[in-house]
Amino acid sequence: MNSTIETILRHRSIRKFKNDPITPEQIKTIVKCAQHASTSSYVMAYTIIGITDETIKEELTTISGHEHVKNSSHLFLFCADLNRIYHLASKEDQEKMKESIESTEQFLVATIDTALAAQNAVIAAESMGLGVCYIGGIRNNIKSVNDILELPDYVIPLFGLAVGYPAHQPEQKPRLPLNVIYHENTYDIKKQTSLIEQFDKDLEKYYIQRGENARTDTWSDQMIRKYTNPIRMDVTQFVKDKKLNKR
Amino acid sequence: MNSTIETILRHRSIRKFKNDPITPEQIKTIVKCAQHASTSSYVMAYTIIGITDETIKEELTTISGHEHVKNSSHLFLFCADLNRIYHLASKEDQEKMKESIESTEQFLVATIDTALAAQNAVIAAESMGLGVCYIGGIRNNIKSVNDILELPDYVIPLFGLAVGYPAHQPEQKPRLPLNVIYHENTYDIKKQTSLIEQFDKDLEKYYIQRGENARTDTWSDQMIRKYTNPIRMDVTQFVKDKKLNKR
Repeated sequence: MNSTIETILRHRSIRKFKNDPITPEQIKTIVKCAQHASTSSYVMAYTIIGITDETIKEELTTISGHEHVKNSSHLFLFCADLNRIYHLASKEDQEKMKESIESTEQFLVATIDTALAAQNAVIAAESMGLGVCYIGGIRNNIKSVNDILELPDYVIPLFGLAVGYPAHQPEQKPRLPLNVIYHENTYDIKKQTSLIEQFDKDLEKYYIQRGENARTDTWSDQMIRKYTNPIRMDVTQFVKDKKLNKR
Repeated sequence: MNSTIETILRHRSIRKFKNDPITPEQIKTIVKCAQHASTSSYVMAYTIIGITDETIKEELTTISGHEHVKNSSHLFLFCADLNRIYHLASKEDQEKMKESIESTEQFLVATIDTALAAQNAVIAAESMGLGVCYIGGIRNNIKSVNDILELPDYVIPLFGLAVGYPAHQPEQKPRLPLNVIYHENTYDIKKQTSLIEQFDKDLEKYYIQRGENARTDTWSDQMIRKYTNPIRMDVTQFVKDKKLNKR
């Protein structure tokens, strides 16, 4: 096993950071690595905003409900961005571009581009001994985040990424068995069922035994609880108001 | 610079592969690394399908229009998957889950989860000396791909990933200047404009000078051409027919 794979397999989300600052050089390396991810047809349809303003950081902490947003050494906000491309064109071409830019396909393209870049940023950061936590919680009030940062049409804040030196070493959250996730030539729901039953039993033991936040729970129960309680239903309209995913 | 960052910065998409096979052990490592990516609220909302059936590989080659799909040593298909979770629940709970599962928010969650996993797979593969190419071209006829693999509702094929040992070393495609992608505390379109103008000039030189497929082009021209010609507009309805992104 090489050191890159070791880094990937060592991953855990870090929610407590040391006070140690990360350097401008490190930030640059992280962004540069993000940019080296693959991009669909060279569109590079994302923008990364570094949040150094304490007031904004405070506001994003409140929205996400996570103290580690504020306590991170550096906070990135990853945005899907088709506005940059729209701005390249003449008024006439902009009119012609709307059908494409506002389609679900391009919403997918920009979202995937952004996520690939972010994951490169994560692996780069972790390879430098930093810890990270994705902050999907900014979508608890996506409209507010949008307004705070005055994002134009065709730009959507997708998630934050809190980065800093780890001040704890949480246990690693078990993943679904490989054969639940990985199939050959077909999508097989039947083989998943018994494997998930076993996973639930194993996870139950993990939750009871683990040091922090011990509880009785299974993956299936968590998922059923989560999905029977709809959240962030306003994201649908928000995205359309930003003129994406609407055609 | 550590070896992980070197791997990330060395990335280029590989479109010609050697005949050398990749081993089941390597495939396992790649999938395991994919699974170690962060996942929103532990949902692990993706499925990876290895395509080893030659007929299916041939069909995906035709749909994507890329010979390197067929010529890869291993082809992965990455799917956003909320069906697994839906299947955990009783009929009664399934009814309650629909509002959430069918929302744009959960379509985003599953898409981002899938992309983060895929990029981990890419970095793992590249760290082992393999080359990769994302195959967004499977969305040229996403309905066909869906039908070939008989994917159920709530499962969307997002992209392929062709993997194998590189049989060429293409030049690295320049990225937008860091300051076009990275901003602080605000979204600044103005500062991007002059930087993109310079990038276009530099890229024009790159295209004229490069060995393979030399041509006269700029990034802005490419993007305007691309986005004034809508493609894959059927993805919108396809996704809704799969019951995602519809509420």
